[in-house]
Amino acid sequence: MSKLLSDLVEALRCLPGVGGKSAQRMAFHLLERDRERGLRLARVLDEAMRQIGNCSRCRNFSETPVCALCSSSGRDRQVLCVVESPTDLAAIEQATGYRGQYFVLLGRLSPLDGLGPRELGLDLLVERLGEGEIEEMIIATNPTVEGEATAHYLAQLARAAGVKPTRLAHGVPLGGELEYVDRGTLAHAFGSRHAAD
Amino acid sequence: MSKLLSDLVEALRCLPGVGGKSAQRMAFHLLERDRERGLRLARVLDEAMRQIGNCSRCRNFSETPVCALCSSSGRDRQVLCVVESPTDLAAIEQATGYRGQYFVLLGRLSPLDGLGPRELGLDLLVERLGEGEIEEMIIATNPTVEGEATAHYLAQLARAAGVKPTRLAHGVPLGGELEYVDRGTLAHAFGSRHAAD
Repeated sequence: MSKLLSDLVEALRCLPGVGGKSAQRMAFHLLERDRERGLRLARVLDEAMRQIGNCSRCRNFSETPVCALCSSSGRDRQVLCVVESPTDLAAIEQATGYRGQYFVLLGRLSPLDGLGPRELGLDLLVERLGEGEIEEMIIATNPTVEGEATAHYLAQLARAAGVKPTRLAHGVPLGGELEYVDRGTLAHAFGSRHAAD
Repeated sequence: MSKLLSDLVEALRCLPGVGGKSAQRMAFHLLERDRERGLRLARVLDEAMRQIGNCSRCRNFSETPVCALCSSSGRDRQVLCVVESPTDLAAIEQATGYRGQYFVLLGRLSPLDGLGPRELGLDLLVERLGEGEIEEMIIATNPTVEGEATAHYLAQLARAAGVKPTRLAHGVPLGGELEYVDRGTLAHAFGSRHAAD
């Protein structure tokens, strides 16, 4: 196999779930049948890796300083949903009819991994809660041990700012990850959220 | 989801076996955890799509006019193995101890698809057989109807040039594709190839 071809196979293995055999099939497929789309992928991938940063307001991925969702006039500014990752945000957007705004932690409280309130941008969140617009904060962290601890901490922050914290309803399986829950379950859990304990 | 991010998800779907959900996971994974390798993939992919052509001697993928395998002094020039695709060549290289040379058809005889002797580069193959160096031509087309018809035609070409045509041994499952055969079976079939009928 030529140097460039084996480089391509190796490079494709950076994709999650892609091993040596799949990477080889992908490389051959693009070379044999789909060079145009391969070139397009290269271009878009390069642009995305360079230009996508984080929204200064909600910390979600965005190629503009403030993301489209934060600057939209069509979203309810009284409700803020806090999620661990952009993937969770995407899952909620796709599964539920939620029309409020978001805040993305980009992680969860995990002192052993060096993830504290500062790394999760909680100063930004407190500032946002202090603006006085938000009435309800929906805590949608993952139902794992660390996610639950983070949720507990977030609920305290909300109460301290006079904002009502709520949690997703039971229905989300414990020990799992939000992004893998089927849409129906996620929509149900989102709809029957309850006051945080 | 931002425009650039949804463009990236869409572009990733050009990869075989990657649907919407996988593409989204890949995009988020690269953005959250692996931008360096994402950039590298973009660069290598672009280079590969632009620079990889076909070897003028064996028609395999190559970024040089004559590929490394054809110009290697370590390969036996008395044996030529004919395969349908670069993927099949890679499978044989990885599974067997074959040390001869190759010829890649980049297809199989299929008149309805407009694939005739010219499209498969058979003029180049006849010229190569006429050079007088080759003593055995191993026909390793897929064991499908079209592959068998192609094999029959190739055997005639070999005989006309005074070259002994051989086929892979029985053991390759009929109706399948070479690249999916496990290494052991493929190595066995390659080792016990027999004279073409």
